Amino acid sequence: MNIVVAQSGGPTAVINSSMLGVYRQALVEDTIGTVYGSLNGIEGIIYDRLVSLNDRIVTDEDMALVRQTPASALGSCRYKLPDAAKEPAVYESIRKTLESHDIGAFFYIGGNDSMDTVNKLSAYFASVGCPIRVMGVPKTIDNDLPLMDHTPGFGSAAKFIATSMAEIIRDATVYDLDSVLIVEIMGRDTGWLTASAALPRLCGESAPHLVYLPEAEFSVDAFVEDVKRIQKESRTVIVAVSEGVEIDAAGDFRSGKVDNFGHKYLSGVGKALEQIVTDRIGCKVRSVELNVLQRCAAHCASATDVCEAEQVGMAAVRAAVAGETGKVAAILRVSDAPYAAEYTCIPVGEVANKVKYVPREWIAAAGNDVTDEVLAYVRPLVEGEIPLLTECGMPRHFVIDR
Amino acid sequence: MNIVVAQSGGPTAVINSSMLGVYRQALVEDTIGTVYGSLNGIEGIIYDRLVSLNDRIVTDEDMALVRQTPASALGSCRYKLPDAAKEPAVYESIRKTLESHDIGAFFYIGGNDSMDTVNKLSAYFASVGCPIRVMGVPKTIDNDLPLMDHTPGFGSAAKFIATSMAEIIRDATVYDLDSVLIVEIMGRDTGWLTASAALPRLCGESAPHLVYLPEAEFSVDAFVEDVKRIQKESRTVIVAVSEGVEIDAAGDFRSGKVDNFGHKYLSGVGKALEQIVTDRIGCKVRSVELNVLQRCAAHCASATDVCEAEQVGMAAVRAAVAGETGKVAAILRVSDAPYAAEYTCIPVGEVANKVKYVPREWIAAAGNDVTDEVLAYVRPLVEGEIPLLTECGMPRHFVIDR
Repeated sequence: MNIVVAQSGGPTAVINSSMLGVYRQALVEDTIGTVYGSLNGIEGIIYDRLVSLNDRIVTDEDMALVRQTPASALGSCRYKLPDAAKEPAVYESIRKTLESHDIGAFFYIGGNDSMDTVNKLSAYFASVGCPIRVMGVPKTIDNDLPLMDHTPGFGSAAKFIATSMAEIIRDATVYDLDSVLIVEIMGRDTGWLTASAALPRLCGESAPHLVYLPEAEFSVDAFVEDVKRIQKESRTVIVAVSEGVEIDAAGDFRSGKVDNFGHKYLSGVGKALEQIVTDRIGCKVRSVELNVLQRCAAHCASATDVCEAEQVGMAAVRAAVAGETGKVAAILRVSDAPYAAEYTCIPVGEVANKVKYVPREWIAAAGNDVTDEVLAYVRPLVEGEIPLLTECGMPRHFVIDR
Repeated sequence: MNIVVAQSGGPTAVINSSMLGVYRQALVEDTIGTVYGSLNGIEGIIYDRLVSLNDRIVTDEDMALVRQTPASALGSCRYKLPDAAKEPAVYESIRKTLESHDIGAFFYIGGNDSMDTVNKLSAYFASVGCPIRVMGVPKTIDNDLPLMDHTPGFGSAAKFIATSMAEIIRDATVYDLDSVLIVEIMGRDTGWLTASAALPRLCGESAPHLVYLPEAEFSVDAFVEDVKRIQKESRTVIVAVSEGVEIDAAGDFRSGKVDNFGHKYLSGVGKALEQIVTDRIGCKVRSVELNVLQRCAAHCASATDVCEAEQVGMAAVRAAVAGETGKVAAILRVSDAPYAAEYTCIPVGEVANKVKYVPREWIAAAGNDVTDEVLAYVRPLVEGEIPLLTECGMPRHFVIDR
C-alpha cells in the first residue's frame, strides 16, 4: 500500500519534522510503497492534489533541511469536515482520491480541529467498510491537547519565548530608571506558552516578576498594586501576559470596538496593560508582542522537540501498519530528570475537541505568577539545539512548490 | 595608567563584545593597569560608580559569556553632556573621578549622542591641558554613523531581521488564499535595517515583495496598486516597512493623536498599512512588529559582527596607547568577496551628530524596493554564528550587579 500525509492548522517550528517521521518510518516498512504529501491539508485529498515525497526528499541533506524548516511544507488549511450524514459527497471525494492512489493509510498532522477530522473520517470509513486507516499526529504550540504529556511544537515555541524573554530582560534593564516592560504571549485559551516565559528564573533571573495566564482571574487593581510593590525593589518590572487574559476594566481596548473614525481598536492585552500603567502609575512603559515568531522561529528550535516531533510521526506509522485506525500518536513522560518519554496511541475521540488547561495549582494563588512545578514540567522540552545549514548567514529552508 | 570603558545609548547584541575588545587589548598593553567599567554610561563617571573588570572577567568562560550577552552589561544612559562653557562643573566631576582612579584614557561605546560626548569631553580636556584621552567606539543597530563602512551591532540586527523574515515568509504562505503580511522594522531615520529584510532573496525567495525605506517618498495609492498587482502572481504579498516611513494619507494612525477616550493611538506604520489594506483591498492582512528583539536577539548574533565589535574596541585602545584622543575607531571595508575589513580611527568631530542614509541609488526608482547593491553590502555582515553556552536550553548571560 501507499500512504499519504497532510498538515493542518497553524504553523509550528517542527510540523515538518513530524512529516519527516512519517516518511522515514515508511521507508523502513516493507508493506509501504510511495509516501504522498497532500497539499493544503485535507483539501489536497478532496481535490486530488498530491505530491510524492519519495521524489522530493531524496538526500540526507534534504532531510536536514526539512527538519530546520518551519511551518507546513505541504501547506495548510482551516477546513472543518462536515458531518458525514449531511455531506457524504465530501467523504466520497476523499475516499476516491485515496483509492485511486492505492493509499492504505492517511496521517493528519494537526491540532484540535485536525483531530476532529481524524475522528469523523475514521468513523465514516468504519461505517462503510472501507479499510483505509486514519491516524492523527499531534501538533500545536498551544500544548492544549489532553491525555498526552505535551504536543510537538510546544517545546520550540517555549524555547523561543524563554530565550527572547531572557534577552528582553537584558534589554529592559540597562537604564537606571523606573519602568515597566510587558511581553504579550500567544495562547488564547491556555497559558502553557506564557508560563514558559518564566523559564529564565531557572538561570537565576528574578524576572519576569508577574505572569498572567488565561486560566486565572485578572484584576486591574491588583495588577497596579503588584507593579508598585515590585518597583520598590526592582526599578524595572517585567510582565508576561497571555493574549487570552480578559481585562474587564480596560475592555475598551479589546478587539471588536471601533473608534470615532470607524476603525477597530487594533491593540491587544499588552497595549491595554501599557495604557493602564501610563494612566495609573505614570512611569516609562513599553509593551512587546512576540507575535508569529513564537510559532515559526525554527532557528531557535528545541532539539528535544525536533526529535520528538519526528518520533511521534514514526509511532503513528508503526501503529497504522499494525492495523490501528482512529487513533492519535502521543508522547508520555516517563521521568523528569533525566528526562525520558515513550510513545503510544490514544483513541482520537478522547482527544478531539477537548482542551488541556494549566492546572490551577500550578498558578500562584493570587493569579499573578506560576509555580516551580510548571517550570520543571517545561524545562526538558526546551533542551538542546540543532545545528543549522545556512546560506548567506540565514538558515536554509526546504520548499515544495504548491 | 588605568583606563575606563562605558556603554551608552540603546542596546545591541554586541556592545559587550566591544567592551571585551577594550578589556582584552588592555590586558596585552604593558602601559595599562586596571580596566574599570563605568556603570550607566558617563553617569557612572560623573558620580564615581566604577567597577573593576579585571575582578569580574576572569576566565575564558567569562569572556565567552560576555560575547553572547546582549545589551549593556555596564548599564546605559541617555545623558547628553552640556556645553562646557555653561556647565563646567560636570566636566570637573568627570575629571575628578578619572584622576582619582589614575585613569589615562576613557572609551565610550555608543552611537551618535555618545560620539558628541567624546567630542565635547576631548575638546574640554585639550582646552584645560588635561592629558586624559577620550576615544569613541561605534555602536548602533541603525548603521547610521558616517565615514565608516558600517557599525558594530548592525550585522546582528540585520541577521535577526533576515532570519525572521525568512521564517515569516514560510509562516505567511501556508494557506491557499489572498493575504498581505506587513513586517515593521526599526530605523526611524535610515533604512539600513529594513533593507536587510530583503536578504532572503539571496536564498531564492521572491519575498519580501515590497520594501519601504524612510529615505524614499511613500504613496498610499502606489502601495495599494503595487499590492494588487503582486497579488495576481503571488497570493501572499509580503511587505517590509521601516517604522520611520511617513504615511500622510493615514496620518490618523501616527502617534500623538488621541482618540475619544483621550488615549493616544498606539499603533505605528505597520498597523496603518494594515488598516489601508483592510479598507481598500479587503483581503486577510496582518502586521508584525519585530520590536526590541531586533537589537537584543544575541542568540542569533552574526559571528562577523561579534568579531568586528571586539576588534573595533581593540583598535580604539591601540590608538589611545599611541597617543590619540578625540577619535572614533572605525571599520573600513577592503573587499566584498572575500569579505575583508580593516580598522582605523577618525576624528570624532567628523562623525558626531551626522547621519549616513541609504543612498537613493540603492533604492528602486519607484521607492518600493531596494536594489541588489544594498544586499551585496549587507550580506557579509550577517555571516556566521557563534556557539552558545546554554543552561536549561537558554543562552547564558553575563551579569554585572549595578
